[in-house]
Amino acid sequence: MSATRYTYLGPAGTFTEAALLTLPEAGTRELVPLASVPAALDAVRAGEAAGAFVPIENSVEGAVTATADELATGTPLMIYREVLLPISFALLVRPGTELGDVKTVSSHPVAQPQVRRWLAAHLPDALWEAASSNAEGARLVQDGKADAAIAGEFAAPLYGLEVLAHDIQDSANATTRFALVGRPGRVSSPTGADKTSMVVWLGDNHPGALLELLQEFAVRGVNLMRIESRPTGEGLGNYCFLIDCEGHLAERRVSETLMGLKRICPQIRFLGSYPRADRRDPAPRQPGTSDQDFDRAADWLARCLDGRGES
Amino acid sequence: MSATRYTYLGPAGTFTEAALLTLPEAGTRELVPLASVPAALDAVRAGEAAGAFVPIENSVEGAVTATADELATGTPLMIYREVLLPISFALLVRPGTELGDVKTVSSHPVAQPQVRRWLAAHLPDALWEAASSNAEGARLVQDGKADAAIAGEFAAPLYGLEVLAHDIQDSANATTRFALVGRPGRVSSPTGADKTSMVVWLGDNHPGALLELLQEFAVRGVNLMRIESRPTGEGLGNYCFLIDCEGHLAERRVSETLMGLKRICPQIRFLGSYPRADRRDPAPRQPGTSDQDFDRAADWLARCLDGRGES
Amino acid sequence: MSATRYTYLGPAGTFTEAALLTLPEAGTRELVPLASVPAALDAVRAGEAAGAFVPIENSVEGAVTATADELATGTPLMIYREVLLPISFALLVRPGTELGDVKTVSSHPVAQPQVRRWLAAHLPDALWEAASSNAEGARLVQDGKADAAIAGEFAAPLYGLEVLAHDIQDSANATTRFALVGRPGRVSSPTGADKTSMVVWLGDNHPGALLELLQEFAVRGVNLMRIESRPTGEGLGNYCFLIDCEGHLAERRVSETLMGLKRICPQIRFLGSYPRADRRDPAPRQPGTSDQDFDRAADWLARCLDGRGES
Amino acid sequence: MSATRYTYLGPAGTFTEAALLTLPEAGTRELVPLASVPAALDAVRAGEAAGAFVPIENSVEGAVTATADELATGTPLMIYREVLLPISFALLVRPGTELGDVKTVSSHPVAQPQVRRWLAAHLPDALWEAASSNAEGARLVQDGKADAAIAGEFAAPLYGLEVLAHDIQDSANATTRFALVGRPGRVSSPTGADKTSMVVWLGDNHPGALLELLQEFAVRGVNLMRIESRPTGEGLGNYCFLIDCEGHLAERRVSETLMGLKRICPQIRFLGSYPRADRRDPAPRQPGTSDQDFDRAADWLARCLDGRGES
Repeated sequence: MSATRYTYLGPAGTFTEAALLTLPEAGTRELVPLASVPAALDAVRAGEAAGAFVPIENSVEGAVTATADELATGTPLMIYREVLLPISFALLVRPGTELGDVKTVSSHPVAQPQVRRWLAAHLPDALWEAASSNAEGARLVQDGKADAAIAGEFAAPLYGLEVLAHDIQDSANATTRFALVGRPGRVSSPTGADKTSMVVWLGDNHPGALLELLQEFAVRGVNLMRIESRPTGEGLGNYCFLIDCEGHLAERRVSETLMGLKRICPQIRFLGSYPRADRRDPAPRQPGTSDQDFDRAADWLARCLDGRGES
Repeated sequence: MSATRYTYLGPAGTFTEAALLTLPEAGTRELVPLASVPAALDAVRAGEAAGAFVPIENSVEGAVTATADELATGTPLMIYREVLLPISFALLVRPGTELGDVKTVSSHPVAQPQVRRWLAAHLPDALWEAASSNAEGARLVQDGKADAAIAGEFAAPLYGLEVLAHDIQDSANATTRFALVGRPGRVSSPTGADKTSMVVWLGDNHPGALLELLQEFAVRGVNLMRIESRPTGEGLGNYCFLIDCEGHLAERRVSETLMGLKRICPQIRFLGSYPRADRRDPAPRQPGTSDQDFDRAADWLARCLDGRGES
Repeated sequence: MSATRYTYLGPAGTFTEAALLTLPEAGTRELVPLASVPAALDAVRAGEAAGAFVPIENSVEGAVTATADELATGTPLMIYREVLLPISFALLVRPGTELGDVKTVSSHPVAQPQVRRWLAAHLPDALWEAASSNAEGARLVQDGKADAAIAGEFAAPLYGLEVLAHDIQDSANATTRFALVGRPGRVSSPTGADKTSMVVWLGDNHPGALLELLQEFAVRGVNLMRIESRPTGEGLGNYCFLIDCEGHLAERRVSETLMGLKRICPQIRFLGSYPRADRRDPAPRQPGTSDQDFDRAADWLARCLDGRGES
Repeated sequence: MSATRYTYLGPAGTFTEAALLTLPEAGTRELVPLASVPAALDAVRAGEAAGAFVPIENSVEGAVTATADELATGTPLMIYREVLLPISFALLVRPGTELGDVKTVSSHPVAQPQVRRWLAAHLPDALWEAASSNAEGARLVQDGKADAAIAGEFAAPLYGLEVLAHDIQDSANATTRFALVGRPGRVSSPTGADKTSMVVWLGDNHPGALLELLQEFAVRGVNLMRIESRPTGEGLGNYCFLIDCEGHLAERRVSETLMGLKRICPQIRFLGSYPRADRRDPAPRQPGTSDQDFDRAADWLARCLDGRGES
């Protein structure tokens, strides 16, 4: 029954699964690992799952482009929740393996650059081999096809491996951001600390188009949290932008901004308003941008139109 | 009966009266000259007249500050119509007077600088004397208290004078802009070539406040036609701005701009939307700023909110 | 000998003279009152005076348009000093006159609106008559041609008059700003609290031209202190702007701004950098806009160009 | 001898090599394939090669993040040349293999999404396996470890394979952009159609920082060609931007923009000015932004400073 099924970027034993398990409802859902982000999302599009849980960006390696491209194109989807997970890598080996024994190390290509300095210092001569996921790297070790895997500690018991070294990531505060994605539906209510995501295309290649786009946010006091360019596939120099901003679509400053973008951009896709997972305080609100300010302005306008518009 | 009474900046025989007579309804109104712009406008405020006809700006001498200050402060008023009148000055004398006889020339102070070069060339030694209006200058000549008056030709017969020289203004295309002002009422319908006037105060003296104000217009593709600063009376460095922009309050690009200004400025006063008197074509409309564009954006937003927002 | 001569907007006994006398060098100059702002400035242009002292703006009545237009057009001039003078009006009468005797009041047209409320309360029936200056109004009273004059107290002894009422201005903090104007010369050194004046023309009537102009200031963190529009004389809708900004032409943020304006505007006239007469602290300096910041950026650029540009 | 050595992202038989061979000097250089972008660039940093040839972005898959991160961090490098190569994939098999025989397909992970639709249509059941490069995928086919490889046709003879299908990429105009990177050196002369690259960090997370950054370009009429965000590694929400703009550092509009960015951004890294590889005409130059305009403005400023600044 699809209403209780969540797909996710598998296999089991990855950071994606670890992040997914932090969702309150995870215990009451059927969690189905799939081989790729497109596969996880297509199951949602096809109605075979209620949600798909996929990585969006990593604080070291950047955007997960497969997720970005899937959200930007194809049948529309919407983000309902975000999860931030601190990333801590361990070196996993078969029991008994010592550091001197490690000739080959396997991991997903995104993991390798995050432990580059540790590898250079401790395993300068080991060969690295790509795996389709960190868990798959662990499986290769289990099968004896590699000597060590770079993965989360939680993967060790799943594959009968041991942790040879903890916290081997180069960056102390590596974090990955994940999203629970579903079919478009009614936007849930604002919580007071929300985020809104969208994809915006710049039209003709006219100089200053990006600046104009950002001014739609600025003039309404809406802060950008992230902007990421992606090629549109129509040749070099053609980009769309995935943008996260502070606030919720049900707030006037945000809805006015999106309507402004809708007017000036050839295409825009709303990707959802959902609670912020970070604990940061929102930037101080710019004067004149509360819903009450918008309502007062609309009241005043109505009075102007029928001649009661005192200043 | 006040409903058929228009006051105007008198006396009779001035350019203001000439401009007022171009209004279609002038023939069916009681036209009452008053001694000053405040007097003409106060009659409207007091309900003693339906409209007041006053000069707003001159293409050579600039803003009529009395009108600006009256519109910006006191009981609110609204502009319903504008009239442009080309200004052509004549030198009026008592019959028989020749140029060599002219020792003194009289006019309103605003007229004198507009004929400065002509006077320097033809009457270099004549003394100029201020009059409270050009018509009053003509009366002084009639009474023998001055030798010549600078005024519109139409004033000559009123005061038994002759035109000694035509078109003596230095600037070939001097024009004065007048407004028909009334108590605030329902804004009349757009004509497709309209103008909207307002007064806007900048709040705290924060750097960039004027820039932010102008960006409210720019981001919605509304062109400024005029911006004039006036002191607020609260000490040097405190100004408000009288602004005319293209478009009508019933157009979404204009109403959204005014609501934006209402939100970010400590005070704003709507002064009316009315047909443009010039024959110039409006500047080309910026893409995405028609009412239809605004409506489409609002429809799209509604669809986003309930999950039907395809891109 | 012109080098020691200052002209000013006369006659003696006006606020202009009172402000002029606050200049340290006033005691060693020949002070020559002239009948108009153009006359005072033309004497400087003709080399007949080293400086001309003229009013620029009043906190109640706004810009002195004659000064603005003279600075914007004709042979270029430069502002070297500004003086702020609080304006306090008195009602001057011939000795023995009582309030009940006053049937006519005379003053310069700029003074009348500043005491409008006082006159309405205390002399509701008196007729007001224009004089070419407040001092001239006092002279008319002396000559018995008017009953009372609105002028500075200091004018009373000059014309054998008495002060019947003090401080009759409606606004408590009325101030007039004056400028000492000379022929263009080397700009004096910055004092740390300076102001720069200029006139800028907008080119073609292209929408957004004023916004672009203001962005040249904003992008370099230069705060506007005043912006005033004046007609160019080429027909309604054609304006130039007199602008005062914080800072001195010898500061990089200011010189870069003016060069930016020079590039994008069809015409610009530099009117001088001079010490601010107000006591207000300058607005806090925006980061990255000190001369040192500009110099560091230029050094970095030079290193980039020859390949030594570390980040 | 390093002066004649170019490293590149190997192995032989990749699109990178094909693009490198289009450089005029390629025939006189020792071309050394290395296993990764960091390895290729580190050889340059270490003085072991004069240049490194690496991919920058692909019109379908987007930025090559390894290249972006290497350019943004570590010992500075500079881009001297760019090359655009249309990307056309073929399906390579061992001689005699037919489509029905293909159970496994191998390629670099970047190639797979570019042929996704073709694979879905023609090989819906084949398993895809990651290879460290497309050439490595071809080698796996040669060794019998996979049935087919997705690679450029030019790779077929190198590995004894045949082309089973041509032009299988989903996007008709897929292009990859490559750069020749060297140690920082004197910037070569402008050609009239140049591009400038840089990395810019936004300082504190202050709202509007990106907008301010873009305004430095806009106010000087410099068009952006590409903007790409990359995490700084200091936690989610901290980004730097790789920016390409039109023009050459030796042009004043560009150098002024970079100095402006240097002043307002906490960090900036110049990555080179080099000829544009595309054939597109540059966007029309905004008025007032030629070197001559900058020089005229500087001359005018000098005249202002010593009192000769006519308007």
